Amino acid sequence: MLPEPSLRRLPWYLAHLKLMHDRGVEFVSSTLLARVTNVDPSRVAKDLSHIGISGKTRVGYEVALLVEVLEEVLGFNRMHKACIFGVGRLGRALLHDSGLEEYGVEIVAGFDTRVEIIGEHINNIPIFSTAQLGDYMKHNHVDIGILTVPVERAQSAADYIVAGGIKAIWNFTPYRIKVAKSIVVQNTSIYSHLAVMFNRLHEINNKV
Amino acid sequence: MLPEPSLRRLPWYLAHLKLMHDRGVEFVSSTLLARVTNVDPSRVAKDLSHIGISGKTRVGYEVALLVEVLEEVLGFNRMHKACIFGVGRLGRALLHDSGLEEYGVEIVAGFDTRVEIIGEHINNIPIFSTAQLGDYMKHNHVDIGILTVPVERAQSAADYIVAGGIKAIWNFTPYRIKVAKSIVVQNTSIYSHLAVMFNRLHEINNKV
Repeated sequence: MLPEPSLRRLPWYLAHLKLMHDRGVEFVSSTLLARVTNVDPSRVAKDLSHIGISGKTRVGYEVALLVEVLEEVLGFNRMHKACIFGVGRLGRALLHDSGLEEYGVEIVAGFDTRVEIIGEHINNIPIFSTAQLGDYMKHNHVDIGILTVPVERAQSAADYIVAGGIKAIWNFTPYRIKVAKSIVVQNTSIYSHLAVMFNRLHEINNKV
Repeated sequence: MLPEPSLRRLPWYLAHLKLMHDRGVEFVSSTLLARVTNVDPSRVAKDLSHIGISGKTRVGYEVALLVEVLEEVLGFNRMHKACIFGVGRLGRALLHDSGLEEYGVEIVAGFDTRVEIIGEHINNIPIFSTAQLGDYMKHNHVDIGILTVPVERAQSAADYIVAGGIKAIWNFTPYRIKVAKSIVVQNTSIYSHLAVMFNRLHEINNKV
């Protein structure tokens, strides 16, 4: 199993490597890759050795090969079908973000409890009633449930998603959901990131 | 300075405390707060002592007070003006996400280089040409630059934002931008989160 900190750094390498590839660069040293991504060179080498890639003496890593292997390992070159649970403001925003497809996420449906939006299409994606999930799952394969419900419904919605047979939850709520160990949970608490940013910003402003 | 890991946990406590407050709960023990947030009880107490809050023997923490202090410390009760740089798919999605206002972020303008969208309004927010930033900053205060440009323009856009006088960059690109130490940078690489989720999901699928 790839350690999570390594996994999180791989997309940084990939982003820079793709740019190099577009510019016609054929080989890159771990030193250069380390410098552009602000990572320690020995850590870069270690991260890449985790995915079975080692640099050649003097020439370094082959850019095209590394891009290919990274996309494969990261799963960005395969489509993962996802449903949005909670078509509120954030859910609606994500339905509009077709950019996720470049990273292997295809949003195929939205689910909500509010009758007034059921049957609607947002960015050509149909919105169903939560009660229709069981039926939907009989005819469609869904890899990921994207959780964007209000915080007070986060746990019940997570339970519902798991009961529906979805194996991974991408949790955008600040609520710490509890699910079986076999379910993959990824928390993306953009509000935690905001908290860190605000705090640092206030420190700067107070110093001035 | 509050340690970043503590800062990141504070919004979790806040989310749960607000729910308790709505339900009329007046006091909460660190044990209960620890249990609902999946954090170690001693860590909860330590995190809260960082912000000058200590529980009372037997009764615990006063919920209403704790909500108030947390919102103040986290900066969620003050508005921070933000501009979007790069009105592509993700930038457009964020312009639609008025939910950010609940967490203290008001998006006041978008900037892009593509003439065909300049002058447009998205969710009542005006889109300007990047060349207009200097002028805009003379008449408006902007706290945060939200970076949603394509990865190959991440560094130049970041340089431009900083030159414009903005003190904090919320970087949604997987590119590791380099700026002066005095600038606050918060990386929200949702693609790194995707990478972790995909990897865990494939491990599960391969086991079955």
